[in-house]
Amino acid sequence: MKSGMLGIGGIVTAAVIATSALGDGHENKAIQAAVKARQSQMILYSFNLGLLGGMAKGDIEYDATAASAAASNLAALSQLDQSRLWPQGSDTEALGADKTRALPAIWQADSTAGEKGMALVTAAIAMEGAAGGGLEALRGAIGEVGKSCGGCHDDYRQTE
Amino acid sequence: MKSGMLGIGGIVTAAVIATSALGDGHENKAIQAAVKARQSQMILYSFNLGLLGGMAKGDIEYDATAASAAASNLAALSQLDQSRLWPQGSDTEALGADKTRALPAIWQADSTAGEKGMALVTAAIAMEGAAGGGLEALRGAIGEVGKSCGGCHDDYRQTE
Repeated sequence: MKSGMLGIGGIVTAAVIATSALGDGHENKAIQAAVKARQSQMILYSFNLGLLGGMAKGDIEYDATAASAAASNLAALSQLDQSRLWPQGSDTEALGADKTRALPAIWQADSTAGEKGMALVTAAIAMEGAAGGGLEALRGAIGEVGKSCGGCHDDYRQTE
Repeated sequence: MKSGMLGIGGIVTAAVIATSALGDGHENKAIQAAVKARQSQMILYSFNLGLLGGMAKGDIEYDATAASAAASNLAALSQLDQSRLWPQGSDTEALGADKTRALPAIWQADSTAGEKGMALVTAAIAMEGAAGGGLEALRGAIGEVGKSCGGCHDDYRQTE
């Protein structure tokens, strides 16, 4: 942990100090595992949404069974318990942009990341109901899914 | 694709040729995405099972809520539709051991990989019912989960 990072202020500083103070690597290992797990979850969101988006755009031929399966996966993934995925001290300022793009704002008192996560759940459940009902139904549901992804990324993910 | 790989025989050879024949990189990109997605799923299995295993061994203090959440995650993950995760041509002989350790035997006619996957579903659902009911209940369920992981890895994952 670089000493220069200790000037950031607020909750983030506290988390950085706490992480540094442990010093035995155990905490860092747990934080790295959490980052890896949440990135894995994002990859699975993307893999399933990618098929639905491809169908919506006409790049992939619509198939009701495949669309339903992807939408069910997305809905189930969005509803996984995420309480262990976002530990304090796992933001981009603490770990570096090469490890995570999660902004410290996620952990601030006024964070709406939880609500934004719930918007994905709502949109994914609606998509689960729509995806097998034809291409137009799928297209009608995909906007809210994309909006919920963007809603969180815009505010809480560092731009590249 | 190395020409030496075309001597392997059977389904694997056919898959390798099919992959090579496309040649435009589109198929390879789809295969890489599938490999990345299934590896992400394995990371999430491991992240959740790691907590349950840590509690079972006494390395992590038993907590009914956390154990239940991890077990529910594991059960939900095991039940995701995996039909897009295992395309032909995504085995270790086609892609290399640095990309995947999935053995060609997964795709052979006598493969029992599907049954082995179902054994994980069964064990994970049993764990979901047990994990919140005390440490002894969790311990009673974890053997079958571990056995189902090993059952597939022993037969279908290349040893390191």
